[in-house]
Amino acid sequence: MKQGMNRSIVFNFVYVLFLLATMTVSAQVNRVEPPNWWVGFKDNGLQLMLHGPDLGSYTAKVESPGVVVRKVLPADSPNYLIIDLELSSEVRPGVMDIVLLKKGKEIRVPYEFKARDKAAEEYKGFDSSDVIYLITPDRFANGNPANDKIEGLRELKVDRTDDYGRHGGDIRGIINHLDYIDEMGFTAIWSSPLLINDMPRASYHGYAITDFYRVDPRFGTLEEYKELAEKSSERGIKLVMDQVANHIGVKHWWMEDLPFKDWIHFQQGFEKGEDIPVTNHRRTVNQDPYASKADAELMDNGWFVPSMPDLNQDNPFMATYLIQNSLWWIETLGLGGIRQDTYPYPDKEFMSAWAGRIMDEYPDFNIVGEEWSYNPLLVGYWQSGSPSSGDYESNLKTTMDFPLQQTLVNALKEEERWDSGFNTLYEALANDFYYHDPQSIMLFGDNHDMDRLFTQLDEDRVLTKMALAYILTVPRIPQVYYGTEILMDNSSKPGDHGLIRTDFPGGWDGDKINAFTGKGLSAAQQDMQQTMKKLLNFRKGNQVLHKGETRHFAPQDGVYTLFRTLNEKTVVLFLNKNDEPVLIPLQRYSEMGLEGKKMRDVISGEEVIWEDMLQLDEKGFLLLTL
Amino acid sequence: MKQGMNRSIVFNFVYVLFLLATMTVSAQVNRVEPPNWWVGFKDNGLQLMLHGPDLGSYTAKVESPGVVVRKVLPADSPNYLIIDLELSSEVRPGVMDIVLLKKGKEIRVPYEFKARDKAAEEYKGFDSSDVIYLITPDRFANGNPANDKIEGLRELKVDRTDDYGRHGGDIRGIINHLDYIDEMGFTAIWSSPLLINDMPRASYHGYAITDFYRVDPRFGTLEEYKELAEKSSERGIKLVMDQVANHIGVKHWWMEDLPFKDWIHFQQGFEKGEDIPVTNHRRTVNQDPYASKADAELMDNGWFVPSMPDLNQDNPFMATYLIQNSLWWIETLGLGGIRQDTYPYPDKEFMSAWAGRIMDEYPDFNIVGEEWSYNPLLVGYWQSGSPSSGDYESNLKTTMDFPLQQTLVNALKEEERWDSGFNTLYEALANDFYYHDPQSIMLFGDNHDMDRLFTQLDEDRVLTKMALAYILTVPRIPQVYYGTEILMDNSSKPGDHGLIRTDFPGGWDGDKINAFTGKGLSAAQQDMQQTMKKLLNFRKGNQVLHKGETRHFAPQDGVYTLFRTLNEKTVVLFLNKNDEPVLIPLQRYSEMGLEGKKMRDVISGEEVIWEDMLQLDEKGFLLLTL
Repeated sequence: MKQGMNRSIVFNFVYVLFLLATMTVSAQVNRVEPPNWWVGFKDNGLQLMLHGPDLGSYTAKVESPGVVVRKVLPADSPNYLIIDLELSSEVRPGVMDIVLLKKGKEIRVPYEFKARDKAAEEYKGFDSSDVIYLITPDRFANGNPANDKIEGLRELKVDRTDDYGRHGGDIRGIINHLDYIDEMGFTAIWSSPLLINDMPRASYHGYAITDFYRVDPRFGTLEEYKELAEKSSERGIKLVMDQVANHIGVKHWWMEDLPFKDWIHFQQGFEKGEDIPVTNHRRTVNQDPYASKADAELMDNGWFVPSMPDLNQDNPFMATYLIQNSLWWIETLGLGGIRQDTYPYPDKEFMSAWAGRIMDEYPDFNIVGEEWSYNPLLVGYWQSGSPSSGDYESNLKTTMDFPLQQTLVNALKEEERWDSGFNTLYEALANDFYYHDPQSIMLFGDNHDMDRLFTQLDEDRVLTKMALAYILTVPRIPQVYYGTEILMDNSSKPGDHGLIRTDFPGGWDGDKINAFTGKGLSAAQQDMQQTMKKLLNFRKGNQVLHKGETRHFAPQDGVYTLFRTLNEKTVVLFLNKNDEPVLIPLQRYSEMGLEGKKMRDVISGEEVIWEDMLQLDEKGFLLLTL
Repeated sequence: MKQGMNRSIVFNFVYVLFLLATMTVSAQVNRVEPPNWWVGFKDNGLQLMLHGPDLGSYTAKVESPGVVVRKVLPADSPNYLIIDLELSSEVRPGVMDIVLLKKGKEIRVPYEFKARDKAAEEYKGFDSSDVIYLITPDRFANGNPANDKIEGLRELKVDRTDDYGRHGGDIRGIINHLDYIDEMGFTAIWSSPLLINDMPRASYHGYAITDFYRVDPRFGTLEEYKELAEKSSERGIKLVMDQVANHIGVKHWWMEDLPFKDWIHFQQGFEKGEDIPVTNHRRTVNQDPYASKADAELMDNGWFVPSMPDLNQDNPFMATYLIQNSLWWIETLGLGGIRQDTYPYPDKEFMSAWAGRIMDEYPDFNIVGEEWSYNPLLVGYWQSGSPSSGDYESNLKTTMDFPLQQTLVNALKEEERWDSGFNTLYEALANDFYYHDPQSIMLFGDNHDMDRLFTQLDEDRVLTKMALAYILTVPRIPQVYYGTEILMDNSSKPGDHGLIRTDFPGGWDGDKINAFTGKGLSAAQQDMQQTMKKLLNFRKGNQVLHKGETRHFAPQDGVYTLFRTLNEKTVVLFLNKNDEPVLIPLQRYSEMGLEGKKMRDVISGEEVIWEDMLQLDEKGFLLLTL
């Protein structure tokens, strides 16, 4: 690894020399994408997209050992050139020249092949041994106030009083608080997108990307993103990148000069200034054997919102562009996973190919796709190996458990009856029989698109603790939204996305409350934070919660009990809704073989002997470990 | 067939002679079950259970070509003898003697092997070409008032004012009204159980069977049951028998002298007069990978209600008894299907073996199992060939679509919003991707255990029509509960089972209203009945609705559209919730290729040209056919 890095420094130096040497000529080449590549991928193809005035009229050649130009193709716009390269095992790290030729005119474009920093097998994706901390970066911590406003970008204002404005949070803010994240016990970070959204309004959220190869300068630089990745990695924290293959921001640089006539959906309408149809959000067309073509097309092709053009992944150059972009980021940052936005909206065959290529290159990597459905049938359908997907193979290991999230919240709030309360939670977990790999599904109490868990639970602290104890105990990949550990809420405006993404206290100089240090937090917030810290650190490295067998007992008298076991280890979670003390006859659990065993209360640290009766004093959870 | 029948008459005569000849001796043998058998089953085993004082101390032999006694076994009770026979292809129809032997004492028991009336392949089970009429026989029609009270039975009172008492309906009543059923357009009859329930109270419902080989004399005789089967068959109406393998009535004759120590669950407790645990109804233990043994055992073993002992199908003699009993009824009545009660309650391996044996003997037969769950995952799990059932093969072709039933009713009543109304119905049907064979699933608006459809729909006639039009159009096996065609309701006492099973007007002498003739029906009832008759007769023999391709268009502006197509045939169902006239642009359906075609309104008979715009005048359904 060290050798590789030294070599990389040499290349960077060489690269700079080349850039200087070719500056005048290559000024005609505005972009080469991907901007570099690596040697040693399984797939030996590389498709370069060059953009610059009149580039489509050039041909191209390379004179570098092992690199063959398969095809050189113009696009529909005269300003693009597509170059298909074939890379043999002879290609060595270094910079080569791409030579563009036209009637005696020659443009030399240096292009670097890097050595890979680590072997493909070392890219370990997030899994059930992790707990993922989801961050909205504009709202977590402002580590570098100097980058809050960047001249030349469309949204210049920074206004922390505007829920939909930029607040100044950035990558440096996350780096500065890795200690906090690490000590809390999180083992993975998923930040919503950090790529540039040069949009006039509400650019903070990140899902309207305007350049797939550029970090938003208000979040920081590529170097800072790499630093975040490296410093996370040093702590054993996996970095998960949020990617968007479905759409772009309407201010994406492509939109001024679209490469092909079918680069985006409804392109002709857009060029004529027409109103563009939005998607019908009929996500079930992906599974529905009876879906009409009309509905399926509008679902796939309609724009997500009028400010986000819908990409046409049926265009093979678009498909390759998106796949290579994902590989580029994985390799550049040494990622520990990708979260793919709006998973069921692009063409599903493309999504399969995209994930397939990634998983083929990085066999232990992981991707989580967002299908916001409360229907377990769909959640299961998208998971690789699903028995219900027929011939369709998604290549997606992780899906999101919206059904269980919803059931959990409702179950906690509802009365205990045959058809409500814990019984629904018990039955929902039984649905795991249908999933190909339940413990690779992501579970959460909230995320950046839904009400804060504390708000969902009517600001009931005890229920919030119960929800999180459950999420951290069941066979899933838990995900926690930043601030949930200190009871952040959006109760004043339910459903308000801006408010859901409230600033994390302490992330800004001068914040009166500092959740990183605990200063100014209420007793309730501190208690929640400490409880989470204990739960997370108990879970960290504790294999019984990562891959133990699960057994649960049907809810009875307001108490629902769930066990995880692995070899000699056992963890028991009691969820109790009784306000008054209740006695639990332990005889009912005799099949677990715990009689007479000494157990420990994970939160209080107290010893509990497992015999006869267990008294639960008040509503809440009790987590015992052997 | 005719020859077989003649032969059967001869045998009956011979049988009577034998009975007379052996009467004094065989008086010691109270029962031989099955009471007869047939030659030519694929499985060549037959296990006889003989009951009589001290029979367990006998051995047995037979002297009949092709019949071999494999084993003779006593039971735990001294009064039972189990005889395992092996039947070779040499066995010919006729009566043989079973010779019971003990210290020189000999009892000869005549036993008949009948010829089969029809080939196994001719037993055609109900399927999506059928519409099943569900009847609660005590409440449909009293064809023979002479059998209303039967001396010697525990419940003697006949009281039509008591919703939970016997009302006198019977098999003769059904036979008498086959014309009505046939003319309405139903093609199959499922009557709730007709076997004897000699129970002290609420014996009318039939699910507490006290003798698996005896027709309840208040419903009629075995000969009448056969007559019903034959007369139905002559009209092409399939007879579906309601069977119960999970439990018996506590007054079953076994309960006085249980054959084995483990014949029923909690048998020792029962014999000691203890309170017996009832099942926990945790039906998900059948699928749940995390179910505790404690919950699974109580689910399987607990009694359904305290008056219904739970059978132990783990006892191999019990298992064989139940399987042979089902075969006996199929063969005796020439059944067109079985409906199996409380399907997920017995041991599921037994249910698989039970259904497997039946389907092995009758490859085109059908069985529908009752899993009352609103979770499509479970409905799909039980269907043979399910991708989600792992190694478990249920051998069950038909399950019940409680999820779609519930969604349909709610969708019709709810406001049209993104997450309610027709959208939920559209998404629920999309779940068909998960089912192995959606068109073999049974769909209904109501049944004998749930509120009348008209009551569920708040007595809205238009919605009731829409529900039934939907049920008769989607790819399912429709089932209609008797009286739903005349808007019978139980609105005065929702949930009241007795009232749900109200007497069908006209079924009793002196009824002022007669729904069979139409006399006294309100205009609304007549309209509903005529609409149903048109729908049913349109569906009868109309393959496009039996096996056509399905395509539906996402609901829009309060209108949901569903097409069935087969070759050149097309049927379109519009469900419209708008009270005011709406115009539907037909361009949206262009993929269906109907432009300019002449279609016919199935209800009004009017011609409709498919072009430009279609106006729907008021809330309701429109069913068009090409």
